[in-house]
Order: sequence, then structure tokens, then C-alpha cells
Amino acid sequence: MLTRSDVEAMRAAARDYLAMAGIVLTDEESMSIEVADFGLGEVRSTGLQLVTYVNTDRVCAKELVLLPGQTCPEHRHPPVGAEPGKEETFRCRWGTVFLYVEGDATADARCRPPSGREHSYTVWKEIRLQPGEQYTIAPDTLHWFQSGSLGAVVSEFSTRSRDELDVFTDPTIARGTRIVDDSA
Amino acid sequence: MLTRSDVEAMRAAARDYLAMAGIVLTDEESMSIEVADFGLGEVRSTGLQLVTYVNTDRVCAKELVLLPGQTCPEHRHPPVGAEPGKEETFRCRWGTVFLYVEGDATADARCRPPSGREHSYTVWKEIRLQPGEQYTIAPDTLHWFQSGSLGAVVSEFSTRSRDELDVFTDPTIARGTRIVDDSA
Repeated sequence: MLTRSDVEAMRAAARDYLAMAGIVLTDEESMSIEVADFGLGEVRSTGLQLVTYVNTDRVCAKELVLLPGQTCPEHRHPPVGAEPGKEETFRCRWGTVFLYVEGDATADARCRPPSGREHSYTVWKEIRLQPGEQYTIAPDTLHWFQSGSLGAVVSEFSTRSRDELDVFTDPTIARGTRIVDDSA
Repeated sequence: MLTRSDVEAMRAAARDYLAMAGIVLTDEESMSIEVADFGLGEVRSTGLQLVTYVNTDRVCAKELVLLPGQTCPEHRHPPVGAEPGKEETFRCRWGTVFLYVEGDATADARCRPPSGREHSYTVWKEIRLQPGEQYTIAPDTLHWFQSGSLGAVVSEFSTRSRDELDVFTDPTIARGTRIVDDSA
């Protein structure tokens, strides 16, 4: 659960990061940046800010903003009917992002899961992305990511996004964000 | 037909535009920017510079660079087997791009086709895109685009790209670019 003030604070920070990355938004996009807390109410540790440019039946493109050390928790995109799950390419635009995927665990991985949530992080093959570097994640593959100490801006190019169908390793996570009004 | 020197000159210009747009490339991407002259050998009027980030069976993402007044000629993306044609979203990142699509012709359209090529430009509904603005083109729809007086950088988010299947209104156009060696 987030308050409206939390959301506005995260949006303001995300705007600054996007501006640093040279990414121009329309006023409408800027006012409506999505803030996801994955239902945990700990958005500065487990959270993500998103701008979705397009999401049709076939194609999706987003900008993702991570504040310093913020983590998008482990999940996968399962098949939907006859269609394979969502296929995603992450391209780092600004800062550093550490991506963890299925495969041989990296010795001395540079990130730690958010405190108290370690049990729900199970894949440890590390890919470090700096500006201009990218990585494509196959459908239905577990992955999570965390920014470095400066935060990160990452472009995502993918097939249709159906966030509500994402499967998280942590069963307490729900993709929707509940926002309560604290403006009164 | 282009000479290697032509290609390198267009690549160098494209690098400058991408840098102005704040877009970071790897060294490999920077060295291999695609220069398309559509077989006409008039790349400064009919031409396009491209960086393809990803092009899988399902998703494609590119950056397009147009030098001032450069035109990508009219074409459409036809269906392939049971699959609808390529669906494209163009998002302007820097400069101004004028996009022309099927529909009611815009009175006083701001662009003119490249000189001598007017016969192969038939759609005149104008959409002006400035940084942060975008437009999605339905599959199998005729379209062409030209940059404004400063040039433009445009991100393209689409389904799989199969340039060799594009259908151009000008029958003399071929999507491949022939490059001749002038370095001897």
C-alpha cells in the first residue's frame, strides 16, 4: 500500500532520472508515471517506476526507472493459451542495472535481495548492463533486477504486457499497487 | 548505389544526431549503423540511417536517424502467411518528423517528396511528431516520413522486421543498399 504522497515523491524522482537520460515525455505521460510497489508497501526497496509508451496485442515498449538499489522482484511471464510468455529485451540507457536470470549462479554476485525477502530470490546468473548494453529474456524464465548505487533507466522492448498474469516467486506479491488517499 | 565514403559520412552524421538525443550505443553498434539508400543512390534526399537493437520472431526495436529533409519513401508492410503485416510505433526523440499515412489529405502539407519522385507519394494525411510524441501505424498501411529542417531521431517499436518484404509505391526501389568500394 502506498499513499498519494509516496506516489508523487517516486514520480518526481523518476522524472529527474528520465531527464538525466535525455528522455522526453509528454505532460500527460509525466503526470501519470506508474509506481509499482508489488503490494509490499516497501517501494524504496521493492519497487519500480514505469512509463508505458505502447502496449498492443503484439508489441509493448516501456521505460523503467529504478532508484538507487531499488529491486524489481523475481518473476516470470508464463504462456497464455497457445502463445509463449512475454519476451523482453532490457536496454540500459542510464546508470547500471544488475539483471539476474536462470543459469549458473555468478560467484560474488553484486546485489543482495531486499532485507527480509531473501527467500524469494532463487536465480543468480548475473548480467551487468551499462548504458548501451542490453539483454533479451526468453519467455517463462525467472528473472529479477536491481539498480546500482546511482539508480538506472532501462528501456524494455517486448511482446504484449499482461502484468496481471506475471508469476512471482514471493507468493505475498501482487502486481497491482493499492494507493490510499492521504491528501485530506 | 553508395560508396564506402558515402556510408561512413552518413554514419558519422547519424552518430552526432544520436549523441544529441542522449542515446548511447556500444562501439559495435556505432561502427555498423545501417545506411539505407533504397537503391536510388540519392541518400541525402531518399535515405535513412538505422540502428537495430533487437529483431526476433516477435519483437523489433530500432533507432532511426533522418538528416535534415531526408525522406523514407512510401511503403507498406504486407501480411506474411497467416500473420498480419508489421505493426510500428514511431516515437520522436529529437527534432521533428512529419509522418504521412492513409486517410484524409492534410491541406497545406508541410513536406514535399524528393524532387523527381513525386509520382510515388500517394498518401497525405500528415502527423507531426516532436520529442515525446508518437504514432502507431496499423499493418499493411501505406506511409512515408520526412524530417524537418533540423533532422530527427525516432525510436521504432514493432513486430518482427522483414525489410525485404516491404512493398514500395515506387517500383524502382529496392530495400537493399549496394555499397561499392572506393577506398582503393
